[in-house]
Amino acid sequence: MGNTFGRIFRLTTFGESHGAAVGGVIDGCPAGLHINISAIEQMLAQRRPSKDFETSRSEPDKVRFLSGIMDGATLGTPIAFVLENQDYNSEDYEHLKDIFRPSHADYTYQAKYGFRDHRGGGRSSARETVARVVAGTIAMQFLEKQGISIDACVTQIGNIKTLDTQTIDFQVSDNSPLRCPDKDTEEQMMAIIAKTKSQGDSLGGVIACVISGCVAGLGEPVFDKLSADLAKAMMGIPSAKGFEIGEGFASAAMTGSTYADVFNNDFSTKTNHSGGIQGGISNGMDIRFSVAFHPVVTTSKPIECVDGKGVSHIIEAKGRHDICHVPRTVPIVQSMAALVIADNFLLQKTQN
Amino acid sequence: MGNTFGRIFRLTTFGESHGAAVGGVIDGCPAGLHINISAIEQMLAQRRPSKDFETSRSEPDKVRFLSGIMDGATLGTPIAFVLENQDYNSEDYEHLKDIFRPSHADYTYQAKYGFRDHRGGGRSSARETVARVVAGTIAMQFLEKQGISIDACVTQIGNIKTLDTQTIDFQVSDNSPLRCPDKDTEEQMMAIIAKTKSQGDSLGGVIACVISGCVAGLGEPVFDKLSADLAKAMMGIPSAKGFEIGEGFASAAMTGSTYADVFNNDFSTKTNHSGGIQGGISNGMDIRFSVAFHPVVTTSKPIECVDGKGVSHIIEAKGRHDICHVPRTVPIVQSMAALVIADNFLLQKTQN
Amino acid sequence: MGNTFGRIFRLTTFGESHGAAVGGVIDGCPAGLHINISAIEQMLAQRRPSKDFETSRSEPDKVRFLSGIMDGATLGTPIAFVLENQDYNSEDYEHLKDIFRPSHADYTYQAKYGFRDHRGGGRSSARETVARVVAGTIAMQFLEKQGISIDACVTQIGNIKTLDTQTIDFQVSDNSPLRCPDKDTEEQMMAIIAKTKSQGDSLGGVIACVISGCVAGLGEPVFDKLSADLAKAMMGIPSAKGFEIGEGFASAAMTGSTYADVFNNDFSTKTNHSGGIQGGISNGMDIRFSVAFHPVVTTSKPIECVDGKGVSHIIEAKGRHDICHVPRTVPIVQSMAALVIADNFLLQKTQN
Amino acid sequence: MGNTFGRIFRLTTFGESHGAAVGGVIDGCPAGLHINISAIEQMLAQRRPSKDFETSRSEPDKVRFLSGIMDGATLGTPIAFVLENQDYNSEDYEHLKDIFRPSHADYTYQAKYGFRDHRGGGRSSARETVARVVAGTIAMQFLEKQGISIDACVTQIGNIKTLDTQTIDFQVSDNSPLRCPDKDTEEQMMAIIAKTKSQGDSLGGVIACVISGCVAGLGEPVFDKLSADLAKAMMGIPSAKGFEIGEGFASAAMTGSTYADVFNNDFSTKTNHSGGIQGGISNGMDIRFSVAFHPVVTTSKPIECVDGKGVSHIIEAKGRHDICHVPRTVPIVQSMAALVIADNFLLQKTQN
Repeated sequence: MGNTFGRIFRLTTFGESHGAAVGGVIDGCPAGLHINISAIEQMLAQRRPSKDFETSRSEPDKVRFLSGIMDGATLGTPIAFVLENQDYNSEDYEHLKDIFRPSHADYTYQAKYGFRDHRGGGRSSARETVARVVAGTIAMQFLEKQGISIDACVTQIGNIKTLDTQTIDFQVSDNSPLRCPDKDTEEQMMAIIAKTKSQGDSLGGVIACVISGCVAGLGEPVFDKLSADLAKAMMGIPSAKGFEIGEGFASAAMTGSTYADVFNNDFSTKTNHSGGIQGGISNGMDIRFSVAFHPVVTTSKPIECVDGKGVSHIIEAKGRHDICHVPRTVPIVQSMAALVIADNFLLQKTQN
Repeated sequence: MGNTFGRIFRLTTFGESHGAAVGGVIDGCPAGLHINISAIEQMLAQRRPSKDFETSRSEPDKVRFLSGIMDGATLGTPIAFVLENQDYNSEDYEHLKDIFRPSHADYTYQAKYGFRDHRGGGRSSARETVARVVAGTIAMQFLEKQGISIDACVTQIGNIKTLDTQTIDFQVSDNSPLRCPDKDTEEQMMAIIAKTKSQGDSLGGVIACVISGCVAGLGEPVFDKLSADLAKAMMGIPSAKGFEIGEGFASAAMTGSTYADVFNNDFSTKTNHSGGIQGGISNGMDIRFSVAFHPVVTTSKPIECVDGKGVSHIIEAKGRHDICHVPRTVPIVQSMAALVIADNFLLQKTQN
Repeated sequence: MGNTFGRIFRLTTFGESHGAAVGGVIDGCPAGLHINISAIEQMLAQRRPSKDFETSRSEPDKVRFLSGIMDGATLGTPIAFVLENQDYNSEDYEHLKDIFRPSHADYTYQAKYGFRDHRGGGRSSARETVARVVAGTIAMQFLEKQGISIDACVTQIGNIKTLDTQTIDFQVSDNSPLRCPDKDTEEQMMAIIAKTKSQGDSLGGVIACVISGCVAGLGEPVFDKLSADLAKAMMGIPSAKGFEIGEGFASAAMTGSTYADVFNNDFSTKTNHSGGIQGGISNGMDIRFSVAFHPVVTTSKPIECVDGKGVSHIIEAKGRHDICHVPRTVPIVQSMAALVIADNFLLQKTQN
Repeated sequence: MGNTFGRIFRLTTFGESHGAAVGGVIDGCPAGLHINISAIEQMLAQRRPSKDFETSRSEPDKVRFLSGIMDGATLGTPIAFVLENQDYNSEDYEHLKDIFRPSHADYTYQAKYGFRDHRGGGRSSARETVARVVAGTIAMQFLEKQGISIDACVTQIGNIKTLDTQTIDFQVSDNSPLRCPDKDTEEQMMAIIAKTKSQGDSLGGVIACVISGCVAGLGEPVFDKLSADLAKAMMGIPSAKGFEIGEGFASAAMTGSTYADVFNNDFSTKTNHSGGIQGGISNGMDIRFSVAFHPVVTTSKPIECVDGKGVSHIIEAKGRHDICHVPRTVPIVQSMAALVIADNFLLQKTQN
């Protein structure tokens, strides 16, 4: 019912924003994989808000593994893990008990379940994504052994974009507080964030992801194309509104003869308009895609809401919120990509 | 393994381009639904190439139902249907037996399976989508009874775009050979198609889809968001390279305060930047999304290919191909959308 | 919705007893498997009624493959196949339109769907199992390449049982019209069948199955134990009422010290009380299980039925029926076992 | 990969016998169900060993819910729960690190994963079933609201059987330490247990289960028959070796005319040979089935094992074990039955 991802390498997550804990269960991770806990902690740190441009809740994000690992290696059995929730103030949300905030999941959860956890967004909170990062980092560790790496960075915040998205220097972005691969653009992004912060507003953005070293042959034909799996994974991240792969929307304006990725004699291609996937199946080139995120709707500005009877109320925000959540979404994009590739990698083993 | 779509309303398709037949099996369609065969035939006709700007193979697309229907109504048991392949010339493809065409699925299928049907693209051919249209039209008939309708049109061909995608007149597009909702734009599209045809090249484009009358509460939280399901469905259509919902990529440049869809007192919203889905769950407003398609890569121009040893060959196209396949992709977009909504509609019945 | 079996090697079947056709779609069968059509026809012949002790409908059972096979080998894409229904007389069932026969699926299908195909049992007819045999034989051909074979025979008809079920001679049973592995028992079975035929009644029985050459390590822990998968497969065969593996029900009366299968030094075991599965996972020994089938309820005797209002009617049987359907159920047991093992074999490839 | 059960009401379990904790995640439980914690604790108590005839490890089995419940009621989101492991002595198992015990999952897990948790059986331990009981009791609470109840009792221990399994008095069995529905039989069972205990051996047995109040129409045709789902659920319980429904194996010796369950005018049936399921779908009568369990193989007797090189060793048992685990398996049978019925109940809502 929506809380499990994958067919072979499967992640089930659980937890509400202000419940006891969030966590997950990974099933199908092969036995004998040595888990690098500090790499997981590093990825979790990247998901945590920066003091400068985010004012979100700060959780220690301490992972406790309950099963599936012995002597540091996976057993092949389910890997369960839990992160206790600590730094939350449910009282901040008491006044929202019967309130639907615009463009949040308040009204839709109520419509779906007839009942909802109003505290901090409940299950719809991005707090849940912490479990994806734990599982995704384990998937990345599995993929590393296969020579596959997954990098991502921020290519747009508000209306500020990096000019070149073809030759991304991830060493730059990995060391940038905004995960921006270009120093000049980063400066402009910092400026617009500062301005937006002073206005009490928020910003969206775009994240680009590159999967390198991926063998040809991953992805299933027809409905479960690798591009379709990636699209689903990305559009399942909170606030995602758009996905494109290779040339994406720009390909609509190309002609067939310019779009064609002509082969080299080693079956690599001279161009990569396709973004590493042809007919839904990886061709061994870099898999390149981008995801657009809308700005967080809760800002420090008062906001017009309705209550359960439809009566309007102006609500002053009390909870914490991000000025721009896009930089800290980078590890989530990487994690979901890793889950997709690990799952398809294992699935492909059944066919050859 | 990639040939089944949906959890409750499930479609499995089969068939190669130049095999005996294509078809599908629908499982989970509720009993007692009266099937309108002529509506199916009408949708299939929309998927067939136009003489003017497409030179594709022309199949009669006669559907034969083998099971699951008695006295014109569904039995609740699997609905199997077959469309025999007739108008194909496998000889046209004999010279491609050991050839990988650029940006086709030739190389990737070979990498995946070690063996492939080289005739007309085999399973990777868009011929397969005929089965999606049959099943999707049945899903649309089921949804109609629930008051839900699904419309789609072409908003871009090459670099020609309709100016306004917010107020689409589907009566215009339904009667347009290009499925374009605006007469002026259609004229420009016709001109660019004519020019491209004369150059022996091809064009991509964008399709917009609107789902109206959809009840609030559809879609599952976290991984199976309704937006994620739609993204997967759309990116599984041949040549799809991008998906966006609501404001999509444009939302990245908005601020949180302008992005918010403020409620009316009846829980409808004053704006619909979200595109009818919030927190992954439908909110009762129109669900609006767009899909970008790259141009068909096979054109009448000679094309540089490689053989199984990596040696380059210039190949003259012999098979048929589309100048612009986007108009005939409209019923496929509608069909996949219908499968997603029918599936989520039935799934939601388990939770209330 | 119940018409698909398996996770990797997946079969979806369709078709009503008196509809146009029955058939299926296999997804996930690896590419490059050469299909032996005559072996499929041979298995189908074993499923057909014998003139001597069965009076069932006789279909030619001619399989037509529609996809997934080229030049005699599988492509890795869905393998669809169809068997047209020919020898049926729907008129024989006209008088049953509003009648519920006891211990048939008439009432339960009506309760489930509110609507049913009353002709020959519709979807609940054992006619559907023909598709399982086609798919199961393909699975057997895949398993043969892995050194795995699946044999089955009849060990009980009515109250006549073979004395020894530990050392079955399948060469005898394969040549027996009753699929009985013991000539003396066969004779007694023939006698009881003749007597039952003269009384216009019918008989049930038990089938034993042995899977040899199965590698250790198949089956998943906890819910998807190999024994659980086999149980589900067998209990999904029409008229199955019991399943036991290894010592089965007799193991309840053993002590722990006598039940233990002590190892030889090559990890084979001195006894095989477990039936080749320990902790839900194959141990490399023969997998041995039995399935009990109730007698066919439609006989040539008049039968007390009710109509849709609950009023009783005595109905004279007009359709054809089996005196004892157990011998022709043998290939169905083998087929379902093959589907289970092929699926688990492929699944295990993801974990090592 | 074997650790998830169900399609709509889904349980995923995790945990090794001597790991940090065992637990589970329930997805798909409808929102608004009030959870009776003390009923869960009561069922867990029934799964705990009795001092008299079991010498097993004694865990407090304190459940902690981490998510999915607010103010005592389900939210519709995943319900995660954890039971910390406390009373285990991994040192007792140190000598078994490189030892395969007969008829345990030691060798098969090693064969499957190439690596295993040797402590207390690891994942293959029946400790895992505690999570099934928590989830199953929640399923039972959901079913209670639909008027469906699930009872089970012990009808055989060793070679001692209750004479009448048709008219079970569950009030008697619920108050019996052996869960036996008949006082005389209980006495004989007690005697055989005492004798077996003095011999340092162990006993198997049979559990009967009755599901009452189940609406007609549950279960899916063909592969996912309700009987097949129940068989899979039961055969997935540790040490299960046989399953039968209604007349079960005895039906093989009946004739068709005696087997038929003739209807009353209210569509109930005069007999219930079918055990409440016809054509795989519930008919509204009591669903009756039995499950056979082999004796626990670890006893206090020395046991012949092999090490990883195949060399034999006589091992003295040090860990704790049950003389007869069948009585405490009763709540596990009920729990698995509840998961099956809840899942099928919700699934059926999609079809009408």
